[in-house]
Amino acid sequence: MDIKLKPIGIITSKYKDKEGSPRQGRYSEEKSVVKVFNEYMEGLEGIEHHKYYMVFYWQDRAERDKLKVVPHGKTEKRGVFYTRAPVGPNPIGFCLVELLEVNGNELTVQWLDALDGSPFLDIKPFWKEVDSV
Amino acid sequence: MDIKLKPIGIITSKYKDKEGSPRQGRYSEEKSVVKVFNEYMEGLEGIEHHKYYMVFYWQDRAERDKLKVVPHGKTEKRGVFYTRAPVGPNPIGFCLVELLEVNGNELTVQWLDALDGSPFLDIKPFWKEVDSV
Repeated sequence: MDIKLKPIGIITSKYKDKEGSPRQGRYSEEKSVVKVFNEYMEGLEGIEHHKYYMVFYWQDRAERDKLKVVPHGKTEKRGVFYTRAPVGPNPIGFCLVELLEVNGNELTVQWLDALDGSPFLDIKPFWKEVDSV
Repeated sequence: MDIKLKPIGIITSKYKDKEGSPRQGRYSEEKSVVKVFNEYMEGLEGIEHHKYYMVFYWQDRAERDKLKVVPHGKTEKRGVFYTRAPVGPNPIGFCLVELLEVNGNELTVQWLDALDGSPFLDIKPFWKEVDSV
C-alpha cells in the first residue's frame, strides 16, 4: 500500500543545504516563511490566536534507505528511530515553532529547520498538556 | 507533485472507530502495540534506551477534504490548522507516547490514539528542550 501526501504549501528558509542548517531548528533564531497554497487558505482561519505550533513538512532531500546512522557527537551507529537524524523510510520533518506573524497565506515562524523549498504538509497547535512531559 | 509514504508497520489498539477513541491519546491509559515490519526492524536498535517518543501514523479513516471543523466543546467552525481535529489534507496522526515495552519488533506504548489497524509511519525520541516550550 502506498499513501499519497499532498504538498499544501512551500517553505522558504535561509537553509540551502544540510551543511548550512542547524542540527535542530530550535538552536537558531532564523525566521522561515511557510507559504500555504491558496486552495488550503481556508484552513488557516483563526491560526493567529495561538502562539506555538507543530509544523510537519517533507524532507525531500533526505536519504530514505538508511536504517542506521551515527548520531551527532556519537561514534557508533544507532537505529534511526532512536535518533533525530533527518533520514529514514518516511522523512517527515517535524518542528515545534513559534508563530511570529500571519500575513494572508504566509506564516512567519522561528525554530523551523526545513531546507529552503521543502514541501509543507500540516500544522497543528502545540498543547503542552498532551504534547509534552 | 505527489509524495509517497511507506507504511513501516501497523498499530493494534482498542479503538475500533472514532466514537470509541479518546479525544487525545493522553487522556487515556489504554495501551497500544506498534508492530514494525521486519524489513525496518534494524531501525529500532537502541530504542529501549529512551522513554518518551513521538509517534507518526496515518489516519487512514480521516476526512481529507475538510478545511473547517467545529472543535470539541465549541460552536463555531475554525480552520483545521488551528485545531487538533483528525481531518485535513494530510491526516498525519501525531502522539507523544511513553514506551512501556520493546519485544522484538513490537513496541507497547501508552497515550497513542490511533485507531486499530492504522499504518505506522515513523517514531522519533521526544527531546523536551526542542519539542516543548
